[in-house]
Amino acid sequence: MAEERIFTAALVVIGDEILSGRTQDKNVAQIAQWLNVQGIRLAEVRVVADQEEAIVEAVNTLRARNDYLFTTGGIGPTHDDITVDAIAAALGTGVTHHPKAVATLTRYYETRGGVTQARLRMARVPEGAELIENRVSGAPGIRIGNIFIMAGVPHITAGMLDALTGTLEGGRPVVSKTIGGWVAESEVADILREAEKAHAGVAIGSYPFFREGRVGANFVVRSPDEVLVDRCLADLTRALEGAGHVVTGGGI
Amino acid sequence: MAEERIFTAALVVIGDEILSGRTQDKNVAQIAQWLNVQGIRLAEVRVVADQEEAIVEAVNTLRARNDYLFTTGGIGPTHDDITVDAIAAALGTGVTHHPKAVATLTRYYETRGGVTQARLRMARVPEGAELIENRVSGAPGIRIGNIFIMAGVPHITAGMLDALTGTLEGGRPVVSKTIGGWVAESEVADILREAEKAHAGVAIGSYPFFREGRVGANFVVRSPDEVLVDRCLADLTRALEGAGHVVTGGGI
Repeated sequence: MAEERIFTAALVVIGDEILSGRTQDKNVAQIAQWLNVQGIRLAEVRVVADQEEAIVEAVNTLRARNDYLFTTGGIGPTHDDITVDAIAAALGTGVTHHPKAVATLTRYYETRGGVTQARLRMARVPEGAELIENRVSGAPGIRIGNIFIMAGVPHITAGMLDALTGTLEGGRPVVSKTIGGWVAESEVADILREAEKAHAGVAIGSYPFFREGRVGANFVVRSPDEVLVDRCLADLTRALEGAGHVVTGGGI
Repeated sequence: MAEERIFTAALVVIGDEILSGRTQDKNVAQIAQWLNVQGIRLAEVRVVADQEEAIVEAVNTLRARNDYLFTTGGIGPTHDDITVDAIAAALGTGVTHHPKAVATLTRYYETRGGVTQARLRMARVPEGAELIENRVSGAPGIRIGNIFIMAGVPHITAGMLDALTGTLEGGRPVVSKTIGGWVAESEVADILREAEKAHAGVAIGSYPFFREGRVGANFVVRSPDEVLVDRCLADLTRALEGAGHVVTGGGI
């Protein structure tokens, strides 16, 4: 069997508000989950400040080594929204007003005080870019080559992801199944290691927690091949139960 | 006046569980907020997979250009916990069992089933490292040079940060003050840009939201110099009110 092609994506989160701790990022988890369904693996994330140099470095490094690059944040109408200019700089291209975005924004603001110069900033795109439909508010997302420029506000990004669903080439989605137990992961470390070693192509993650005053852990078995996942999960369950642990399917 | 020294930190979040979207990261915001109080700016964050090569690249790039480097995750007892080995590899040093950590873990597990080889994995540190007290559970954090190796579980990291409070050299903490209004940021973009331009050393962030069916935005004025923040905030408030907007101190 030929080795399966794995599609990867990277994400650059652009925003002083994340680095200052003012805002809790939600786009990493949201985009990761969406990518999983498209059969694309989120391979790396960077959070950078609203500074052109930092954005350019991250974008150029990550787009070169991943199939897709997503960015979130910095596409609003204010002075601290510099994503479009930074990505144009990274690509060595100019910035232009996209006619369809101008039309969309003009229509959107018709009943909202009218379009202004500041609002038309949101129609600016790197030359050669296409738009990503914004199903929630006015300003569209932007696609240029393998770069997808999304909003910072999570529910707007959710709408843009929805518009992109099914349009990106991916591999087989990763299947992940979870079992959990009220057991310290340190007690079963050998069992986990052996189970992973015995099943090539499968990764086992161990995620401990403290809840209701007790120690427990969930064990997540992942692979694009569901048959392998099921086989590994069955062996792991058997080994844990053989060592006297009670295991809950689906995790705790 | 001599230019003020700015202390920066970077954070490497280590964990497939963040990249798979299974777990919502909380350490970025928590560490950012803690660093602010220490007078240290979180300058950049990377989320990397549980892979030695990825960890080494991130650690070596970021520690070279920041005063401090924090990592979270991957210091538990299981096979997917490779942070200590990866950081030792990044530093070109060996790994050793820290005698104090061995003692701590032996004591901690005395009433919890006894210490085992797997549990003693959590006493492994890069050669020359010191421990960071874990006030919540058994396994300590690790400090080596300007690198701080913290837990992945947020409340354990919180305890480690608490133990580090006041021990790192920083500059003046950044002061940030917020005003908010039920106004579209695109309506006041010019006012924001002008206010920032008129006050060197101050950054204004604009954070739009949709709530209760209405559009609004918070404007955050930031600088290590509180006098500058207050002056800028007063001017910005005056300009917004002059344009007919109602402004709420502290934000909405």
